[in-house]
Amino acid sequence: MSINIVCLPGDGIGPEVTESVISVLNAVADKFKLEINIDQQLIGGAAIDATGDPLPAKTVSACQNADAVFLGAIGGPKWDDPNAKVRPEQGLLRLRSAMGVFSNIRPLTVFPELVDASPLKPKVLEGVDFIVVRELTGGIYFGDKHRGENFATDECRYSVEEIERITKVACELAMQRGKKITSVDKANVLETSRLWREVVTKLVSQNYPEIKLEHQLVDSCAMKMIQNPAHFDVVLTENMFGDILSDEASVLAGSMGLLASSSIGEGSGLFEPIHGSAPDIAGQGIANPYASILSAAMMLRWLNYLAEADAIETAVKSSIASGILTRDLKSESEIKTHQVTHAVIQNL
Amino acid sequence: MSINIVCLPGDGIGPEVTESVISVLNAVADKFKLEINIDQQLIGGAAIDATGDPLPAKTVSACQNADAVFLGAIGGPKWDDPNAKVRPEQGLLRLRSAMGVFSNIRPLTVFPELVDASPLKPKVLEGVDFIVVRELTGGIYFGDKHRGENFATDECRYSVEEIERITKVACELAMQRGKKITSVDKANVLETSRLWREVVTKLVSQNYPEIKLEHQLVDSCAMKMIQNPAHFDVVLTENMFGDILSDEASVLAGSMGLLASSSIGEGSGLFEPIHGSAPDIAGQGIANPYASILSAAMMLRWLNYLAEADAIETAVKSSIASGILTRDLKSESEIKTHQVTHAVIQNL
Ligand SMILES: CC(C)[C@H](C(=O)O)[C@@H](O)C(=O)O
Ligand SMILES: CC(C)[C@H](C(=O)O)[C@@H](O)C(=O)O
Repeated sequence: MSINIVCLPGDGIGPEVTESVISVLNAVADKFKLEINIDQQLIGGAAIDATGDPLPAKTVSACQNADAVFLGAIGGPKWDDPNAKVRPEQGLLRLRSAMGVFSNIRPLTVFPELVDASPLKPKVLEGVDFIVVRELTGGIYFGDKHRGENFATDECRYSVEEIERITKVACELAMQRGKKITSVDKANVLETSRLWREVVTKLVSQNYPEIKLEHQLVDSCAMKMIQNPAHFDVVLTENMFGDILSDEASVLAGSMGLLASSSIGEGSGLFEPIHGSAPDIAGQGIANPYASILSAAMMLRWLNYLAEADAIETAVKSSIASGILTRDLKSESEIKTHQVTHAVIQNL
Repeated sequence: MSINIVCLPGDGIGPEVTESVISVLNAVADKFKLEINIDQQLIGGAAIDATGDPLPAKTVSACQNADAVFLGAIGGPKWDDPNAKVRPEQGLLRLRSAMGVFSNIRPLTVFPELVDASPLKPKVLEGVDFIVVRELTGGIYFGDKHRGENFATDECRYSVEEIERITKVACELAMQRGKKITSVDKANVLETSRLWREVVTKLVSQNYPEIKLEHQLVDSCAMKMIQNPAHFDVVLTENMFGDILSDEASVLAGSMGLLASSSIGEGSGLFEPIHGSAPDIAGQGIANPYASILSAAMMLRWLNYLAEADAIETAVKSSIASGILTRDLKSESEIKTHQVTHAVIQNL
């Protein structure tokens, strides 16, 4: 058995957490007698520096032919000029499009060890366990953009088909969980949201009669996610609202340092930690690799290597429980990235 | 001296809180020997029921000719069909446009009495005191909307002039406070955001060199507002992001029941509580009128009746301190709307 993985280290702490993922994957391969082939490719700022292009053609074809792709992080102040012709983020957006990964899935679990680190009261966090399903290759992210002499425009566009396929993903997830979907839109203002609401309502009622569907406006959802996060099971939303709400949701967990995400579609999947490139701590060897390691576990689970995924998750839990926490999780800790990697591998 | 106020009760609990505002304004008029003329007009669902139009022409001209306008709340399940030709919200959006109130200003103060009611830990709430300045008559709210056979579109459009005038409002506010502006956009994805960032940067550096300006992406702002809300002084943003972020911010306060907002531009201003029409409790006489009464104080302050505004705010504070709290502020309370009104008037 062999698995072909493309790793995209990217920028900032990306290379450091990717190194950690590669070590863990190699250890898993040893333990489970698997062949895991890892091919590293360029993306983001690193790719701009090397080739002038944030997503070289070679990276695209490698990703399209891989079984799955792991991405570290992209972007940083070096490439941040809003007027620059090429930006790291374009690499990520084009990759999502090229891979056809139209659904971004972010589970939100609150680790008991981190309740203290959350800005929310422990009572509010009781029973919080939901998933944000964000449409990832449509909407205002990919619509026409225009700059006139004294104005600018961005078009938000959604087709029925784009809404249907992401709704199906949310429904399949909901059926394995609490059978409840909160679809988020701004139907009192936007035409795309009214279409969204219609299509979601029709698809769920015709094909998933067991699912309890509710609609919520994005502004009130932004409140409820903090006031009563235990209310949610599966949150389904479009690209821009999903970007905002899934980042907001991540705060509940106390740290982004444990949150993984997967982006899937029809071909290979893309797995990444939800934290960014953290340029302020890059290169110091102190980045927290847990979210990346958990993204790798998510990747193996998606590839149907369930025992391997379980092993990684259990090893991460043991390492956390034994206090192997980087500075972002425990103030004044001096634990380094490689020590976390080592602990996880030991616990495998 | 006479002041001409238009009151728009609207829907749900709107009429109940408006009644409270009218009583308080009348009491202020008595006490300060002012003439306050109050003209009630239709808007929203109530206007649809009476005239078929959520914003009758008579309401528009009354509002344009008033010194200031107070709005209760609009909308409710009765008019919620997303396919309806007329919707209550259209009335509000058209009113904002007709009155030219391009800036929505929402101060976020945490009342000590409500720290317990906030989902956030008291430590996180220490020193929180910021203002959200939201552009209110542009962006995707007012751009072209289109429904095709299998798709829908909404256009987000901003002109340089629209960005400049709202930035000036934020700068003037910042100069009276901490001289710090956090401008929120999604410049790594949207063309309108790149224009936004350019225009804000240029205007602030050329005209307000004392102001410390920072730019933040909307997704990370949604996190920071919960993680470290004391960071903010003046948050400046476009219409859609402002809708989401200002609602999210309101959660910090423990209840929306004390939060007022003003929408101002070149003519008369529009003042409203930030809570909605709360159809679930409408008609029961238990709505919390504090946010509305505080909106009326904000209105008098804007009209330069400072002693009158102070008097209302002090009366509200005393009433709250003496425990006159409706159910939303104190569970199982049986205090009614008219009792709050009465207490505030007594304390004037
Ligand atoms: C980097 C940026 C373009 C991206 C997005 O907005 O989608 C990021 O915020 C994310 O959520 O993955
Ligand atoms: C009712 C709705 C159209 C409105 C908006 O989105 O602007 C409301 O949410 C607000 O914030 O005043």
